[in-house]
Amino acid sequence: MNKDKLPKQEENFSDWYNQVIQRAELADYAPVRGCMVVRPYGWSIWENIQSALDERFKQTGHVNAAFPLFIPMSFLEKEKEHVEGFSPELAVVTIGGGQELEEPLVVRPTSETIIGHMYAKWIKSYRDLPVLINQWANVVRWEMRTRLFLRTLEFYWQEGHTAHETAEEAENETRKMLDVYTDFAVNVAAVPVIPGLKSDSEKFAGAVRSYTIEAMMGDTKALQSGTSHNLGQNFAKAFEIQYLDRNNELQYCWTTSWGLSTRFVGAVIMTHGDDQGLVLPPRLAPIQIVIVPIFRKEEEQSAVMQTVEKVSEMLSTFRVKIDDRTEMTPGFKFNDWELRGVPLRIEIGPKDVQNESVIAARRDIPGRDGKIKINLTEISQKIPGLLDEIHNNMLAKATKFRDDHILQPEDYESFKSCIEENWALSYWCGSTSCEAKIKEDTKATIRCLPLDQDDDQQGSCIVCGKSANKKAYFARAY
Amino acid sequence: MNKDKLPKQEENFSDWYNQVIQRAELADYAPVRGCMVVRPYGWSIWENIQSALDERFKQTGHVNAAFPLFIPMSFLEKEKEHVEGFSPELAVVTIGGGQELEEPLVVRPTSETIIGHMYAKWIKSYRDLPVLINQWANVVRWEMRTRLFLRTLEFYWQEGHTAHETAEEAENETRKMLDVYTDFAVNVAAVPVIPGLKSDSEKFAGAVRSYTIEAMMGDTKALQSGTSHNLGQNFAKAFEIQYLDRNNELQYCWTTSWGLSTRFVGAVIMTHGDDQGLVLPPRLAPIQIVIVPIFRKEEEQSAVMQTVEKVSEMLSTFRVKIDDRTEMTPGFKFNDWELRGVPLRIEIGPKDVQNESVIAARRDIPGRDGKIKINLTEISQKIPGLLDEIHNNMLAKATKFRDDHILQPEDYESFKSCIEENWALSYWCGSTSCEAKIKEDTKATIRCLPLDQDDDQQGSCIVCGKSANKKAYFARAY
Repeated sequence: MNKDKLPKQEENFSDWYNQVIQRAELADYAPVRGCMVVRPYGWSIWENIQSALDERFKQTGHVNAAFPLFIPMSFLEKEKEHVEGFSPELAVVTIGGGQELEEPLVVRPTSETIIGHMYAKWIKSYRDLPVLINQWANVVRWEMRTRLFLRTLEFYWQEGHTAHETAEEAENETRKMLDVYTDFAVNVAAVPVIPGLKSDSEKFAGAVRSYTIEAMMGDTKALQSGTSHNLGQNFAKAFEIQYLDRNNELQYCWTTSWGLSTRFVGAVIMTHGDDQGLVLPPRLAPIQIVIVPIFRKEEEQSAVMQTVEKVSEMLSTFRVKIDDRTEMTPGFKFNDWELRGVPLRIEIGPKDVQNESVIAARRDIPGRDGKIKINLTEISQKIPGLLDEIHNNMLAKATKFRDDHILQPEDYESFKSCIEENWALSYWCGSTSCEAKIKEDTKATIRCLPLDQDDDQQGSCIVCGKSANKKAYFARAY
Repeated sequence: MNKDKLPKQEENFSDWYNQVIQRAELADYAPVRGCMVVRPYGWSIWENIQSALDERFKQTGHVNAAFPLFIPMSFLEKEKEHVEGFSPELAVVTIGGGQELEEPLVVRPTSETIIGHMYAKWIKSYRDLPVLINQWANVVRWEMRTRLFLRTLEFYWQEGHTAHETAEEAENETRKMLDVYTDFAVNVAAVPVIPGLKSDSEKFAGAVRSYTIEAMMGDTKALQSGTSHNLGQNFAKAFEIQYLDRNNELQYCWTTSWGLSTRFVGAVIMTHGDDQGLVLPPRLAPIQIVIVPIFRKEEEQSAVMQTVEKVSEMLSTFRVKIDDRTEMTPGFKFNDWELRGVPLRIEIGPKDVQNESVIAARRDIPGRDGKIKINLTEISQKIPGLLDEIHNNMLAKATKFRDDHILQPEDYESFKSCIEENWALSYWCGSTSCEAKIKEDTKATIRCLPLDQDDDQQGSCIVCGKSANKKAYFARAY
C-alpha cells in the first residue's frame, strides 16, 4: 500500500476515486487500454451483487442461460437504430485459427440480436411464452474515455431478455425489473435511486421506452445505475420472433431487456466513500466484520486470542475476518480496514477480556461516536441489529445528501448556476431542442422523468417557458 | 420436441448424444460455426457444477477475481511452448471502435500470460505468497471439429492460477486441486474418474507436469474431464514474477494452473445417459424431483393437487418441480422427464391420495424395479436417503462399466484389438516413439499414468518390449 495519504474528496473527487480503488485493491488497470482487472476484494462485492440480484430474478420467474460472445456483423445491421447506436464502439474479430474470416464477428456489446435470433427458433406458440431468460456475461464496448468500473472496454453485467404475448405484458415486465433494481439498490446497497423514464434522446438504441435508476454520487454527479427497456416489436420484427396466438394466427412477440453492470460497484464506492476510504454497505461487504486482537506482551496473547476465536464463532453466520497479522500495529490495521470500508470493526484487548466485553467501531460513524461497548453475552443478539442500523444510517445519509442537492430552480439563469453542484428538478416541454440547449449550455442531461408525477400538475418549461406537465431531473453525469 | 424416437446408443452413440442435448434442451447451435447456446436447463447443470466446485475452492483458501478477455498478442509470444501450442487456434481482434488496432488482441484461449503479467506487478515479497486466485470465465479456441459441450469455439470454465515460494508448494497445490476435481467428479457428479499424470506429448503447452482426471464415456471413449498443471518457473521467468525471499534475495515464483470446463456437462451426459435420454446425478440435477399429478375426472383434481402441494412442501429443501401442465397426459410427462433425466419422479393419483402414499420412480432403475411406494408420513425421512442411493447406484454402475472395459492385454496384437472397444492398462517404456506408434496404429493416446502405481513393479513396454516400470492407460478419446 502506498503510504501517501488518500486525496481528499473535496479537493479532487476523481483522483480520490481512482486511488481508493487501487489502494483498497478493488481493481487494477489491465495492459490493454481501457480494460480492468477486478481483484478479489472488488470481485467479491460483485459476487454479492450477483447473488442478491439472482435471487430476485429467480423469485420473479427468470432462469439463466448463456449465449455466445461472438455475433455475426450482419445481425447488428438488422435493427436500424441498434446498429447506429452500437457500431462506433465495436470490437471486431477478423481472424480465426490463422485465417481471415468470411464474415467478421462482433464481440457482443449487448445481446439483443443474437438472443432474438435464438428466440425466433425456439418460440412457436403462445404456449412457449413468456420466455424469461437472464445471462451473467462479459460485454465489450470500445469506449474512448474509460474509468475503472464506470466505463471500461470490457465489463461484466447481467442482461435479461424476455418475450411476451402482449404489449401490456412486456411493459409490466419492464417496470417489474425496474422495481427489482430499485429494491436491490435501496435495500441491499443502501444506494437511494430515483426510478424514471429516459428521454427519447437518451434511450437504448432500438428501444421503445427505456427506464433507469439514477443515483447521485458524492460529487453530486449522476450515475445511471441500471436500465430496463421495453423493446416493443422492434427486435421481434427484425429477427422474426413470431408465435401462433390463441386463434392460431401468427403474431410478433413483444420483447424487453434489462441490465445492471459492474458499474454499480462504482456507484457503491462514490455514494458512500469518505476521506478515509471505502464505506461498504453491510449486505454487500466482502468482510462484514473484522476482529482486531490487541496485545503488547506475549502473556496477553493467548487470553486475547481465545476471546477473539469465541467472538468469531458467535458470528459465524456473518462474513468475519480475524486480522492476526503480527507485523503490523493495531493502529495500522484500523486505518487499513477503514480504507477497505469494512462496516464493523471489533477490537479485543486484555482489558476487554477482563471486562468480558468488546469494543465495536462503526465505519459509518467515524471516531468515538461510532464506538460501542458490547458485553460478550450480548454479541450474537446485538450485532445483527447493529449491521442493519449501519445499513439504515448509510441509506439515510445518502438520501439526505441527495435531497439537499436537488433544487427546483425558478428560471433558466438559476437553473444554470444550480446545475454546477446540484441536480435540478424542472418542468420540461418534451422538445429535443430544449434538452439539447441545456446540454450545450451546462453539460447537464435529462437523467430521467420520475415515475411518481401527478398527472394534473402544470408548469412551464425551464428553457422555453412553454406549458409543460412533466418534470425531469437534470444533472451532469458519469 | 421432435416426436421421432431418440436413436439408440448402441446404434449411433454420437447421434444419440447430439439429439439428447437438443431434445432435453440443454444446448443449441449458435449461428456462428462451432459456438453453442447453453439453454436454461443445461446452464443450470453448469451452475450446480460451479457452486460445488466454488465451495471446494473457497474451502482450500482460494478467492475469485476477473482478468480481461483481451490479451496483447505479444504476451503469448513470451512463453515459447505456450505460443506454439495455442497460436493455431486463436481468435484475433484487429478492429476496435472503427480503427485498425496497432497491436492485435487475442481473445483469451487461457489466461496464464495476462495473469502472469498482473502477478508480476502485485507480488513483491514472500509475504504476498501464496497467491491463490480462481476465475470463472469464457475462453475461445478456434477448433475445427466441434461438438456441443465437448469442443466448442467458446466455452465456459474456471481457471485457477496460483503462485508460490517453493517448487514443493507448487507441486502440492497442483495435486491438491487434482484431488478436489476427483472428489467433485466422484461425489457430486457420480462420474468415476482416474487421476493421473499426462505424458509429455499430451501435457499443457508451457507446463512442467500436467495432471488429469480421465473418465470413460458410454461408448468406452475417454474424456479428459479436468486438468491441473505444475508450471514450474516457466511463466514466472517469461513474465518476471519475482519476490524477495526471507533472506531478501530476489527469486522467481513457482506457479500452477488448473481448469474444469463445460465439457464436464458432456461427461455427465455420456457417463450416465441411456436410450430413454439423460440420467442426471441427483446432486447436479436442475430438477431433483418432479411430481406428476394424475387424475381423470375433475372431481379428483382438488384432492390430488392438495396432496401434491403437501408433498412438495415436505421436500422444500430439494429442487422440486410440479408438472401441472394440463394439455399433456401423464404418460407423455413420464417420457418427457425421463428424457430430461430427472432422478426421481413422484406420481400422485386418486388411489395414492386414498392410501396416503405416493409412488416414487427412480430414473436410474428403469421400469417396475425402480418404483417404490412411500407413505406420506415417511416422505421427509425417506427421500434424502433415496437420492443418495440413486447417486451411489449411478456411481457403482458407471464404475463397473468402466472396470469391465479396462483390459490388460498381454501383447501388442491383443492391445490393438482390445483398444477398439476398451481401454488398455499397459506398461510403457516412456518413449515418445512408442506412444506415437500406438497413436498411428490405433488412434489411441495415453490418457494418463495413474498415480497409484507400485514403485517396485516391473514389466515390458507393450510396444517395444523394453523394460518398463510405469503403466499407462491407453484409449481413444474425445
